[in-house]
Amino acid sequence: MARFLKKRDASKGQSPGSLIFIGTQKTDDVSVRMIDYDAIRLTDKELSDIKDGSHFKSTNTVTWININGLHDTQKIQEVGQAFDLHPLVMEDILNTGQRPKLEEFDTCVYIVLKMIRLDEKTNMIHNEQLSIILGDKFLLTFQEQPGDVFEPVRERIRRPKSRIRGSGADYLAYALLDTVVDNYMHTIELIGEKIEDLEEDILEGHDTAVMEKINGFKREINYLRKSIRPARDAILNMSRLDSDLFHENTLPFIKDLQDLTHQATEAIDTYRDLLTDQLNIYNSVMANKMNDIMKVLTIFAAIFIPLTFIAGIYGTNFEYLPELHYRYSYFIFWAVLIALAGILLFYFKRKRWL
Amino acid sequence: MARFLKKRDASKGQSPGSLIFIGTQKTDDVSVRMIDYDAIRLTDKELSDIKDGSHFKSTNTVTWININGLHDTQKIQEVGQAFDLHPLVMEDILNTGQRPKLEEFDTCVYIVLKMIRLDEKTNMIHNEQLSIILGDKFLLTFQEQPGDVFEPVRERIRRPKSRIRGSGADYLAYALLDTVVDNYMHTIELIGEKIEDLEEDILEGHDTAVMEKINGFKREINYLRKSIRPARDAILNMSRLDSDLFHENTLPFIKDLQDLTHQATEAIDTYRDLLTDQLNIYNSVMANKMNDIMKVLTIFAAIFIPLTFIAGIYGTNFEYLPELHYRYSYFIFWAVLIALAGILLFYFKRKRWL
Amino acid sequence: MARFLKKRDASKGQSPGSLIFIGTQKTDDVSVRMIDYDAIRLTDKELSDIKDGSHFKSTNTVTWININGLHDTQKIQEVGQAFDLHPLVMEDILNTGQRPKLEEFDTCVYIVLKMIRLDEKTNMIHNEQLSIILGDKFLLTFQEQPGDVFEPVRERIRRPKSRIRGSGADYLAYALLDTVVDNYMHTIELIGEKIEDLEEDILEGHDTAVMEKINGFKREINYLRKSIRPARDAILNMSRLDSDLFHENTLPFIKDLQDLTHQATEAIDTYRDLLTDQLNIYNSVMANKMNDIMKVLTIFAAIFIPLTFIAGIYGTNFEYLPELHYRYSYFIFWAVLIALAGILLFYFKRKRWL
Amino acid sequence: MARFLKKRDASKGQSPGSLIFIGTQKTDDVSVRMIDYDAIRLTDKELSDIKDGSHFKSTNTVTWININGLHDTQKIQEVGQAFDLHPLVMEDILNTGQRPKLEEFDTCVYIVLKMIRLDEKTNMIHNEQLSIILGDKFLLTFQEQPGDVFEPVRERIRRPKSRIRGSGADYLAYALLDTVVDNYMHTIELIGEKIEDLEEDILEGHDTAVMEKINGFKREINYLRKSIRPARDAILNMSRLDSDLFHENTLPFIKDLQDLTHQATEAIDTYRDLLTDQLNIYNSVMANKMNDIMKVLTIFAAIFIPLTFIAGIYGTNFEYLPELHYRYSYFIFWAVLIALAGILLFYFKRKRWL
Amino acid sequence: MARFLKKRDASKGQSPGSLIFIGTQKTDDVSVRMIDYDAIRLTDKELSDIKDGSHFKSTNTVTWININGLHDTQKIQEVGQAFDLHPLVMEDILNTGQRPKLEEFDTCVYIVLKMIRLDEKTNMIHNEQLSIILGDKFLLTFQEQPGDVFEPVRERIRRPKSRIRGSGADYLAYALLDTVVDNYMHTIELIGEKIEDLEEDILEGHDTAVMEKINGFKREINYLRKSIRPARDAILNMSRLDSDLFHENTLPFIKDLQDLTHQATEAIDTYRDLLTDQLNIYNSVMANKMNDIMKVLTIFAAIFIPLTFIAGIYGTNFEYLPELHYRYSYFIFWAVLIALAGILLFYFKRKRWL
Repeated sequence: MARFLKKRDASKGQSPGSLIFIGTQKTDDVSVRMIDYDAIRLTDKELSDIKDGSHFKSTNTVTWININGLHDTQKIQEVGQAFDLHPLVMEDILNTGQRPKLEEFDTCVYIVLKMIRLDEKTNMIHNEQLSIILGDKFLLTFQEQPGDVFEPVRERIRRPKSRIRGSGADYLAYALLDTVVDNYMHTIELIGEKIEDLEEDILEGHDTAVMEKINGFKREINYLRKSIRPARDAILNMSRLDSDLFHENTLPFIKDLQDLTHQATEAIDTYRDLLTDQLNIYNSVMANKMNDIMKVLTIFAAIFIPLTFIAGIYGTNFEYLPELHYRYSYFIFWAVLIALAGILLFYFKRKRWL
Repeated sequence: MARFLKKRDASKGQSPGSLIFIGTQKTDDVSVRMIDYDAIRLTDKELSDIKDGSHFKSTNTVTWININGLHDTQKIQEVGQAFDLHPLVMEDILNTGQRPKLEEFDTCVYIVLKMIRLDEKTNMIHNEQLSIILGDKFLLTFQEQPGDVFEPVRERIRRPKSRIRGSGADYLAYALLDTVVDNYMHTIELIGEKIEDLEEDILEGHDTAVMEKINGFKREINYLRKSIRPARDAILNMSRLDSDLFHENTLPFIKDLQDLTHQATEAIDTYRDLLTDQLNIYNSVMANKMNDIMKVLTIFAAIFIPLTFIAGIYGTNFEYLPELHYRYSYFIFWAVLIALAGILLFYFKRKRWL
Repeated sequence: MARFLKKRDASKGQSPGSLIFIGTQKTDDVSVRMIDYDAIRLTDKELSDIKDGSHFKSTNTVTWININGLHDTQKIQEVGQAFDLHPLVMEDILNTGQRPKLEEFDTCVYIVLKMIRLDEKTNMIHNEQLSIILGDKFLLTFQEQPGDVFEPVRERIRRPKSRIRGSGADYLAYALLDTVVDNYMHTIELIGEKIEDLEEDILEGHDTAVMEKINGFKREINYLRKSIRPARDAILNMSRLDSDLFHENTLPFIKDLQDLTHQATEAIDTYRDLLTDQLNIYNSVMANKMNDIMKVLTIFAAIFIPLTFIAGIYGTNFEYLPELHYRYSYFIFWAVLIALAGILLFYFKRKRWL
Repeated sequence: MARFLKKRDASKGQSPGSLIFIGTQKTDDVSVRMIDYDAIRLTDKELSDIKDGSHFKSTNTVTWININGLHDTQKIQEVGQAFDLHPLVMEDILNTGQRPKLEEFDTCVYIVLKMIRLDEKTNMIHNEQLSIILGDKFLLTFQEQPGDVFEPVRERIRRPKSRIRGSGADYLAYALLDTVVDNYMHTIELIGEKIEDLEEDILEGHDTAVMEKINGFKREINYLRKSIRPARDAILNMSRLDSDLFHENTLPFIKDLQDLTHQATEAIDTYRDLLTDQLNIYNSVMANKMNDIMKVLTIFAAIFIPLTFIAGIYGTNFEYLPELHYRYSYFIFWAVLIALAGILLFYFKRKRWL
Repeated sequence: MARFLKKRDASKGQSPGSLIFIGTQKTDDVSVRMIDYDAIRLTDKELSDIKDGSHFKSTNTVTWININGLHDTQKIQEVGQAFDLHPLVMEDILNTGQRPKLEEFDTCVYIVLKMIRLDEKTNMIHNEQLSIILGDKFLLTFQEQPGDVFEPVRERIRRPKSRIRGSGADYLAYALLDTVVDNYMHTIELIGEKIEDLEEDILEGHDTAVMEKINGFKREINYLRKSIRPARDAILNMSRLDSDLFHENTLPFIKDLQDLTHQATEAIDTYRDLLTDQLNIYNSVMANKMNDIMKVLTIFAAIFIPLTFIAGIYGTNFEYLPELHYRYSYFIFWAVLIALAGILLFYFKRKRWL
């Protein structure tokens, strides 16, 4: 199964802007939730029909509409029409193999990112695509399935005095992105800790599964990188937009976010290097062990093979074999054997093999 | 056979602009097909003489002329003259080893790309050169052989209400390029899936052909990269042209195309890294197996060689060998052998070789 | 334990600007020390309440307030309020896992760096975060714990005629940064010397712990690099600030500082390359030793195994074995053995194994 | 012999602009040939004295003077004086170890390149330095020895209707450079083909000279790269010159040339990567073969050493060795041996060593 | 001993601009030599007091003052005061671990470089720091010890008609730098030749010291690179200076110098790559030899161990061992042994081990 590229067969040769869901269906129902607020008022409800929400678009309050589930292209198209989205944006929202990016339009900004989760049992990284449409007074978010990391943000919205309530949709977008990136950091921490713990196993060299682990982590780190690097680029572009959707006093926060993603990609590169080093060290440990094994073999063979040969000489049945008949032959024979073994042991000692 | 460079012997030292076909002849006949359309009318016919098509150049309809087969330099030259092409462009069209690029002229844009195909049986990538000349109201395409991936595009042209019918030659060019790049993605997916599947074979380490496979995929990925990277650069340049051949409302589509080629090159780099990792892991697996083999050898040799030596001692024919004559010598002998073997086994156990 | 990333769990999903201490508490008390000076006067005292110091902010003297210990968020917040710091700066000061950087604000510049220390016993690098806020006439420094490398700077401040007494807060900032970077150089020197000393151990190949040492140094060098590279970038940005906090005649000193950090990162890269080379050489030395071991084994085995076989032949008990009964058989037998051994020795000699 | 750097001993410490020939003398005589042409007239003759040619400098015809042989510094100096060349240019022309480059002067452009030739017998790359001085109406070329690749260009000059006859000295310069670069491509093709052919030898692993071949090609490819990469840079600079020596309608040809050199360097990098991959694969093949060898050894040793030990037991001469006297001992003995061998074979089978 | 970084302990925490000599004292006396010239006059004398020279600063002649020996900080300070040097420049001159760089001041340019020397006996690179201060009509040079490579330049100054006599201090600076860089080239040539000569030793594989040599050259090349790369950057900056200290007609010479340093760094990179390739090849050669050794061992063991076993069978003392008593047993026994050996030899032949 190709994990590093999503199958796009359905879209091949299709006219651009055709709405086709590309991905795995992860939820049964498409649910739509609207949170509408300003410093004083707050509305939070599930919408059964997107049209109920679209007239909030032009009010002065901040309107956040979150859609969970993307497989019902009909519903998604309704959202697109209600908010006047470009057909190519709609196509990208539905393609869950989309590369993280930021696109600017006349009246809105489109951001697509991955939300990252580490399955601690299998040590595998899972991701879910998050599309954000930021308008002047509204924010749309599209997720593949229910359940997200945004609960703390909603909590802050509910607090009447929070900064978020006094700010615009751009600050809300920032808050969501910040949460997503905080989760990147958390995931990297979790996996990084496991990678750093590998070191001891490697140097002891007993755990034969170590190489598979190194390999597995390498794959996951590459997978993470594939999601986070373009996300960093997208977030870097946020402060270079022509539009004035991001207000003056949100910019320091975005700068902070940029620092964080920068730190995330740097950490990923650090761990990649660490894993490469670990594989090198693992190979050296293996070579060392091989040397040890060969030394044992060589010492045993080099000492006993000559001795066995000498014993073999006196096991021959030649009729005229004078040594066999002397009184002390057997004891001399032993003396020779022991002397020979001693010389060889001394030789190996001097070669530092013992 | 040099697959990474096309033989150019014929052209060495030739005056530039001399029309010489460089490549392998892949079809018998050169066929010319013209599709001429606007939102209302549609003409689709084979042209026996290129001059039949050239007067469409100045009409207000979009004229797409597709030429299959490049070996008949006479015919190609006629096309060039009919559409006023620069001699160097003509030379490039005929050189099937051309590097993908985009060139701007006063009245037209010249794009050359590779169409990619994976032969699934041999896992080899094949490519065919596609030259596109985009003029104000016409589009010329040159292919090496009949049979292409553009059927869906022609299908869309036949539908009277499609966006393509309402747009200009620039949108048609985009539609063709999009199809070509979609095929890149599809090919990378196919080969990527096979690469990711290799992993298991590697870790088991039984399939000795694995290294050849890794190597083969590496070569193919490099081959792909050679075609797709300059294609990405050419497509990136499309939005930086001075000319106004690309209209305002085609630009978002071109941006989308750029994203896609970017994703394609990124995927190729990911798979290259993956293959390098796999070769490293394969080597580690091999080293591990060697260690196992040596351990078995060493254990057998280290235990039985000393025992054989002791047996050899009592196989000697010394006349005065006291031990041979004691009642329980043989049983003591056995006890010594077993004790010695036990000590050695314990020693290897402690070294964790067992 | 993840050394390359600080745990940020506490801050996940928190509203930005929330003051949360991230790190390990390294001191019991938060202590505040103020040094206030100009060319003539000098005040140096511990402040029990930060408010005692804040009115110095607007005087014409240079005011340096140093805070040791960051875990008491209440106290830190008081400092922030007294000097009008941006909430995101406050958050960064408290996060000891902050990446070195320089940030410009309307009235001040914020610099965060790592102070580096090598624990010579374990060869491990430790760092402590240093935050510097440079205002027009004041300088704030935040450290994680008491005890620092700034004593020589304080010494220079105490000398009435020193350049530092005649200069502004920007020169003081430079002096502190210079001391920090001097310590980087010193640490790199210490560890570099140990790395260069490894070489001999490697070529002799007797010290089996060498690989672990190489690995350990590699990890520490990477750890150093993680702190120093972004520090270099921050210091490079110091000469590109819009603000006029750095005066004309401090700029040559800053240029000098930039050279020094540049040299530091270059030295780190040199040592990284050296360690990679050393690991390669170590592996070659190991392979060489393996070859030697195998040669010894092969020579012993190849010589004595055939001889033992021949002895075995004449140890058989066949009734009709003519050679056994000849008068000189035994001596011919020895002659054959010696001749055979001689031939083999000559063969190995010619192969240059001896 | 240092092939990658030319000995410059003679020039060390010399005043710059001193005319000293650095290189190997490759011809006896310095010969000078002048071709002077415009669309109508054509003169082609050997000049015995350079002064005979210098007055053509100011005519309206294109004058191409080619000098073969550089060791006669006197003659070269005369040329320099006749055409007013800068002393440093004269010095560079005589130094055959010059790095390819392009330099612009007030009245002329100086280009130095290497002409490449593959000696197919030794697979070694040879080069010869070519210096080109392009003036407004004249072109000087300096070669180390007679015999060059420019015959087709002279042929084209002889044809009265050729484009070259109707164009200026800049087009002639282009035509020569194009021929040189075409030869680069041809050489890369030749060597590339040999490199691609190596693959099979490597995978079979029988040809022990393969590694030397890989190494040899690597050295030659590096040697090629050293000549061609700076040539590419020089040619890239041709379209960025301030001077108007290159006319408007020569520029597309120069663009074409740039594409070609770009393709050449890309091909070189491809083959470098291929060779690195091949060495990796070669090493893996070697490791695989080692594993096979060790398996054979281990299987033989592990089976027969224990059997020999058992035989040794019953070859002992203990007086009281009960088994020796039973009727069916010998047959039981054989049964035990065969059973043991069978068990071991089964064990190795299960380990997949057989 | 840390060769890649100079100990700076003495300067740690010191006020910047403090004059402290960092390095090894290489001469007893500090000697000062002044050469003062214009096209007509020439003065060349040792100065016992720097003040004797300082009034030449403002004359119209070119004044070159060379100081050998840096440990006498008092004297150096006098020079600094006499010529109004910035304290940071003075500090850099005394720190012999200074990184090569170019710094521009209002009235002078400061250049610091390394003079390189190869000790041919130990193959080690030694360097000596050279500081150059270029003013409008004077040039100061500081060296660590007497004896330099500038004799040919002094020789040229003595010649009344030489270009140097007719040019300014900038041309003198160029002449000195040219000599230094010529020495870089010469050193790279010397070491490069030795590196290229290694190849044969490696392929023969007999010289076990080869790896140490490769390693040693790698270290020296890295050491060279550390000196020459920043020198190249400094020299590149010479043509980008704001000041008009370098006159129009010196610029082509500086361009020439830049080409030369560029060539030097390129040559260094070429040799670095070559050494890396050589180590790879050395490792392959080692692996090959190991394979050969193992083949010999395996062939001997696999042939003689079974034969010995069979001989062992008939060496047993079973009472009822029928084969022992047949008339031709012994001869059949030999036939079996020879047949078995033949089969095994044939098997190894087919495996191409023989």
